[in-house]
Amino acid sequence: MTERTLIKDLAAASDGAISVSGWVDTIRDQKKVQFVVLRDESGATQLVHPKNFAEDGTPLADELADTISALTVGTFLTATGELKHDERVKLGGVEIKLDGLAVVSEAAVSPIAEDSSGDKRMDWRFLDLRVPKNSLVFKVQTTFLHALRTYWVERDFIEIHTPKLMASASESKAELFEVDYFERKAYLAQSPQFFKQMAQPAGFGKIFEVGPAFRADPSFTSRHATEFTSVDTEFSWIDSHEDVMKVHEELLVAGFQAIKDKHGDEIKALYDVDVVVPTVPFPRVPLAEAKRIVAERGYEVPRADDDMDPEGERQIAAWALETYGHEFVFLTDYASSIRPFYHMRHEGDAALTNSYDLIFNGVEISTGAQREHRIDVLIEQAKEKGLEPEELDFYLDFFRYGVPPHGGFGMGLSRVLMLLLKMPNIREATYLFRGPTRLLP
Amino acid sequence: MTERTLIKDLAAASDGAISVSGWVDTIRDQKKVQFVVLRDESGATQLVHPKNFAEDGTPLADELADTISALTVGTFLTATGELKHDERVKLGGVEIKLDGLAVVSEAAVSPIAEDSSGDKRMDWRFLDLRVPKNSLVFKVQTTFLHALRTYWVERDFIEIHTPKLMASASESKAELFEVDYFERKAYLAQSPQFFKQMAQPAGFGKIFEVGPAFRADPSFTSRHATEFTSVDTEFSWIDSHEDVMKVHEELLVAGFQAIKDKHGDEIKALYDVDVVVPTVPFPRVPLAEAKRIVAERGYEVPRADDDMDPEGERQIAAWALETYGHEFVFLTDYASSIRPFYHMRHEGDAALTNSYDLIFNGVEISTGAQREHRIDVLIEQAKEKGLEPEELDFYLDFFRYGVPPHGGFGMGLSRVLMLLLKMPNIREATYLFRGPTRLLP
Repeated sequence: MTERTLIKDLAAASDGAISVSGWVDTIRDQKKVQFVVLRDESGATQLVHPKNFAEDGTPLADELADTISALTVGTFLTATGELKHDERVKLGGVEIKLDGLAVVSEAAVSPIAEDSSGDKRMDWRFLDLRVPKNSLVFKVQTTFLHALRTYWVERDFIEIHTPKLMASASESKAELFEVDYFERKAYLAQSPQFFKQMAQPAGFGKIFEVGPAFRADPSFTSRHATEFTSVDTEFSWIDSHEDVMKVHEELLVAGFQAIKDKHGDEIKALYDVDVVVPTVPFPRVPLAEAKRIVAERGYEVPRADDDMDPEGERQIAAWALETYGHEFVFLTDYASSIRPFYHMRHEGDAALTNSYDLIFNGVEISTGAQREHRIDVLIEQAKEKGLEPEELDFYLDFFRYGVPPHGGFGMGLSRVLMLLLKMPNIREATYLFRGPTRLLP
Repeated sequence: MTERTLIKDLAAASDGAISVSGWVDTIRDQKKVQFVVLRDESGATQLVHPKNFAEDGTPLADELADTISALTVGTFLTATGELKHDERVKLGGVEIKLDGLAVVSEAAVSPIAEDSSGDKRMDWRFLDLRVPKNSLVFKVQTTFLHALRTYWVERDFIEIHTPKLMASASESKAELFEVDYFERKAYLAQSPQFFKQMAQPAGFGKIFEVGPAFRADPSFTSRHATEFTSVDTEFSWIDSHEDVMKVHEELLVAGFQAIKDKHGDEIKALYDVDVVVPTVPFPRVPLAEAKRIVAERGYEVPRADDDMDPEGERQIAAWALETYGHEFVFLTDYASSIRPFYHMRHEGDAALTNSYDLIFNGVEISTGAQREHRIDVLIEQAKEKGLEPEELDFYLDFFRYGVPPHGGFGMGLSRVLMLLLKMPNIREATYLFRGPTRLLP
């Protein structure tokens, strides 16, 4: 490896010979002295080169000065020089007086600027991600997922990787991507739903998966993508969806605590957001009650079915924040009419399900539920939804040879990050966004 | 949650009232006493019920005995009773004298048995996975990946999720799955190659990803699948592929150490395999030399090109084991003719690349390389391979605006697990295998 010091470690390094590598952020080529701000994945620092002059003020031959004058923004290089701590230097309190500068890869002029349109920035995503604010979300993502996985692993959850190629739909037939699969058709998994449930009759007890899911959703909203990273868990021997919510909120506490500890200051500096580690229990409101609360606030959800709508979710989130000071709220007990056939229904009231949505800062980030594990009830519910039990046979088999009661949730990773950082849309929280008209880069 | 004790915790629990939940493994319904072996995700234990008799030996009414007699193998239930430590009990030195038994989900007779064909076992994968030997691989997988991710996270690697929907091929056009994508065609990513490289000009420094990759490979071998989990990493500022190999072997040491610590005994018991934590450095052999060594052992690789073949890989692995006592061997410096256009070539000898394959127990598990980051050289190499630079334009752009030298590797997760546990084929190491004729369950 190149013997380089990361820029974040310069402040703690001793004065003297040093080498840093990164890309040119800005150049100030002045008459007597040149400054280059160099950036790497960890920060930015100032390189300085006083030009050579004769005693009478005539410029002398200065190869290094010529190299610096010819630099372009974005060029990757390795700089060697003398590190000097100097508290007058605003950028980290250090600067490097250059001895040498090796250009590794010269940059053409960037086609984007700060004020480029969102679409153009996406065309040049790899350049857009050089902006510290834009890459921070992926450092946060790394910390968040590692905290979740550590929670799971410490509690003996098993990590699985369910297939994304399926013989049939896992959710709705409407938003299904079709694949040419040798002599037949396959479909891209809309969620790992069926296969994470499969781990329960398989006797795995508790599982988790973080992986892609695909929805051929033609809509262009700020929170939809055709491909997204789904955070899933599923576990056995629950009594109700309450047990799922408990694990869900513990996971989020672990994840947000890790984010706050590691990135709280940087998030505050770059996003002006205070990361709040939520307290448990999160507020829980049955959906019917939530609709009454929202109506009392003057908003009638304009839907014929029993569901919430995005404005309703914003309203109930505002209410939860006012009432409990909480950024999260579980909406529970959704009507069976608007839930998939595999959600378990209330004992004694088949109109309601043992399910919930989790709302974070006004937007739904997750759906969880206890699953129906009784094969006869499950078949009835499938039929009631107009599904053909024959097509679901491979799934229904999971329930014919013994299966424990179980439940779980799926959560959209980029939605959590978007709402945490209060980003305007999900594209900013996705490494490479995929939408109906977006397949590149 | 159901208040249950995990079976693995029974030995350490005090005698007295206890509740366990799991599925029926075996039933011995004897004249005077009934035994049920109950299994959960953590182990198996014996439930015992002495039947009720009058003093004269006449059987008395015994509802519990009737319930037990009616049990079927695979049925999920919750058992309550008195835990008793008794070293005469072979199964864990404890048994539970039953007070009650609540059947949760009755099982139909399993369609598979120990001697069922591999194909039939795959049809009923969820039942096959109830066998502890078959599920152990996923516990090992969990531990392995967590150790790798911990290595990465502790060293500030960033986790990314690259899109699996692409506008063009990432590797070869031959093994590409085509997707109907709204009004056009998309393709499933054969690897995250292009997009993990994108993180380098984006200034991410070091990244990792664990996710699915897709190959429309029609072959039916013991080590191929149409969908597999790829373990990928890529990082900047390397001097050569040697830097990639160093990270690679450190990761494997961390992963294997964690596996040995957590599962060594169980792997020995169920697979009769001693987990060997490899020593560093792993042996490194340039491919040309490897072919000479193999030839000296009496095997001439029957290929017209410069590549190895599976038997050659087995031979060189046997040689490395004999010579160095090492289960791993890096084959380095592959010929440019058999490597993709994006591998960097030797300075001064364009016939060879800065690349390697990693062989583990005789089979290739990974390819790594330094990437060509000089745009002019990269375009030349693409043309030489018969590719159209126009089609690759979005990828070539990554190199036009500055890019650091970088490299990385991709590694097949199930291959590592298969070879570690000396399994006969990759299907056993995959949660749900996908092959040319296998899309179900």
